[in-house]
Amino acid sequence: MAELMTKIITLLTDFGSFYPAQMKGVILSRLGDRASEITFVDIAHDIPPQDVRAGAFALLSTARYFPAGTIHISVVDPGVGTDRMGLVVEGGGQIFVGPDNGLLLPAAQSLGASGSPPQAPQAYKIAVSQEILGAGHGHGPESNTFHGRDIFAPVAALLASGKSPASMGPRVRPKDLNFGAARKTDQGLEATVIYVDRFGNLILNMRDLPSFPVSLKGIKLKTVRTYGQARRIEPLITLGSHGFAEIAVNQGNAAEAFCLKAGDRIELEEI
Amino acid sequence: MAELMTKIITLLTDFGSFYPAQMKGVILSRLGDRASEITFVDIAHDIPPQDVRAGAFALLSTARYFPAGTIHISVVDPGVGTDRMGLVVEGGGQIFVGPDNGLLLPAAQSLGASGSPPQAPQAYKIAVSQEILGAGHGHGPESNTFHGRDIFAPVAALLASGKSPASMGPRVRPKDLNFGAARKTDQGLEATVIYVDRFGNLILNMRDLPSFPVSLKGIKLKTVRTYGQARRIEPLITLGSHGFAEIAVNQGNAAEAFCLKAGDRIELEEI
Amino acid sequence: MAELMTKIITLLTDFGSFYPAQMKGVILSRLGDRASEITFVDIAHDIPPQDVRAGAFALLSTARYFPAGTIHISVVDPGVGTDRMGLVVEGGGQIFVGPDNGLLLPAAQSLGASGSPPQAPQAYKIAVSQEILGAGHGHGPESNTFHGRDIFAPVAALLASGKSPASMGPRVRPKDLNFGAARKTDQGLEATVIYVDRFGNLILNMRDLPSFPVSLKGIKLKTVRTYGQARRIEPLITLGSHGFAEIAVNQGNAAEAFCLKAGDRIELEEI
Repeated sequence: MAELMTKIITLLTDFGSFYPAQMKGVILSRLGDRASEITFVDIAHDIPPQDVRAGAFALLSTARYFPAGTIHISVVDPGVGTDRMGLVVEGGGQIFVGPDNGLLLPAAQSLGASGSPPQAPQAYKIAVSQEILGAGHGHGPESNTFHGRDIFAPVAALLASGKSPASMGPRVRPKDLNFGAARKTDQGLEATVIYVDRFGNLILNMRDLPSFPVSLKGIKLKTVRTYGQARRIEPLITLGSHGFAEIAVNQGNAAEAFCLKAGDRIELEEI
Repeated sequence: MAELMTKIITLLTDFGSFYPAQMKGVILSRLGDRASEITFVDIAHDIPPQDVRAGAFALLSTARYFPAGTIHISVVDPGVGTDRMGLVVEGGGQIFVGPDNGLLLPAAQSLGASGSPPQAPQAYKIAVSQEILGAGHGHGPESNTFHGRDIFAPVAALLASGKSPASMGPRVRPKDLNFGAARKTDQGLEATVIYVDRFGNLILNMRDLPSFPVSLKGIKLKTVRTYGQARRIEPLITLGSHGFAEIAVNQGNAAEAFCLKAGDRIELEEI
Repeated sequence: MAELMTKIITLLTDFGSFYPAQMKGVILSRLGDRASEITFVDIAHDIPPQDVRAGAFALLSTARYFPAGTIHISVVDPGVGTDRMGLVVEGGGQIFVGPDNGLLLPAAQSLGASGSPPQAPQAYKIAVSQEILGAGHGHGPESNTFHGRDIFAPVAALLASGKSPASMGPRVRPKDLNFGAARKTDQGLEATVIYVDRFGNLILNMRDLPSFPVSLKGIKLKTVRTYGQARRIEPLITLGSHGFAEIAVNQGNAAEAFCLKAGDRIELEEI
């Protein structure tokens, strides 16, 4: 086995409960004596079930804070059991493992684009082999309903042991995912809620603040640089630390106040 | 102190919040300089409160993916504060620590049975000693309401330091737990929901798929090998990756659709 | 860079989702080759949003189980974006990093008080420097809305690398937080619910059990040493393993049964 090169493995899923632990168990089992060199970091396991865009947003927002060489396993996978491919994507010196449904691309592209020189991510289709499936685990390729554990976790263990992404399978053009962008309308801007965080803040598919004062459902949103600039319970729009515009109610819950959830389309009316 | 033998410690509880961290703190404190050799893996802390069967299912489903030598601390313990025993159970080369209420047995038996040669698990009653309780922590054996931290965590630290399970106390016959099994009825099959996962999938106490087409509450369930074989929102029954039959609504939520929860008895009607 | 002194870093936040992973990513990135020496322990990320008292209770309850040298990053921070200070507090040989809003004090004081000789905690105001902010991350001091990642995580990495708390900034008098205490009334005792745990147990701002029999909302509470002394579904009051009085319904949910939540004031009537 090659030298253990990469020591940080993150996990992002919409599974919850004990499934992420199964993935860690597989990785630790495959690495043997070197298991203790691995640092696992859970990015999130509470992605709304099968919401690929929310998962892609979480991965995009988080991967940039990790060092080069980090391996990210991400599984939000409505297409499991179909013939969608498994991917290894390399971008900006980090490695992403998961389904080919757009989940991995925004993060890999963003990391690649911020490198010097900027680089497009390289994607490889996972060619499922006996080395990946192993002897004892799973129910074979036919019936398994858990690629995260039976394919992506073993692939991550191989990568962590020094195998190259290119050795996992042929180079492919991965499926992209587009967060879309806010659209100018007669009344103002139309945008989409891509994520609702634990505080009820609404993250939008907008990379800039509106250039004019706006209201949402008839209620004025104060445009601020920091939450501290709004009064208690004042609705606001700001550029979040993730680089996307977000609507919040200072010390309150915007998702509840405006009755909105991930996936909802909203109209920001110019006032 | 003996050489640190085992480096992976998993935790499974129904505590949530900061209680698992207290257990990790105790283990790290006891191990001193060797603390950094430990890899913690959280299996789940969202087991429905005091649902021993759900906890046992999670442990059974997950332990098999871990390497030999792993120590599993599992605490779902409606009997805390009574005189139920604490156990160390060895099965298939892994070690289980927790209450004697059946929680540990299915996992230990399953691992032992799949070994070669197959072996019954060995169980030892934890004889609570000053070495376990330590000097500073807890409120003594009388008043503590948290065996997970005050007994099981120190025992795991001792085991991780190389103490043998047999050194923890006398050999005992542990309490077993039976998931039961589906029962043939005039109309079809009667089964029990033992777990509801994050997707609302209903895991049943059945190790095989029905040999005939079935409906649940008047709605046909398509028998499939993978979710991909069902249409969107189509109710299905399949053999999950955990080896139990599960009822799902493809890309939907079966628990909500059928109004069912863990513990419910269901009738699968032959159609 | 100085020798890596401290290897355990805990995190406690009210963020949930992917924000704690960003903080870990920053720490791992800053530590470079030494990243694998760090053991992260998540204390809790489900603190009710902006409930400083609940966070302080969780930290106070948990820190004492960790070894000397542990670094605790704790962020429950309604004042983010205002000019409240960031603190490093040393107490009882452990180090606390977070906002100056009382969150850190009860834990640091408790650890210091139980040392020999007892010591008051020492607090230092974080002087935000380029060394902390780094080159690549964040949006600069002006616009960031996430001190946990952009300030507290880098500070923890510096501390983990051997920098002293005193080197982080000038000595200050930190803001304290008072859990209050139960108050004798004509009818009995008035207390406040400071935390509701996953079982629905109500933790009160009382360090002792009432010295007389009490009822809550007309329902008698059995005073017990352990849960096992109460019958199934019997309401009880006991001294929890955290050292605070708690009201529970044995194998039930007291928060639901009594319709109470964190922050509520209750009257324990003498009967």
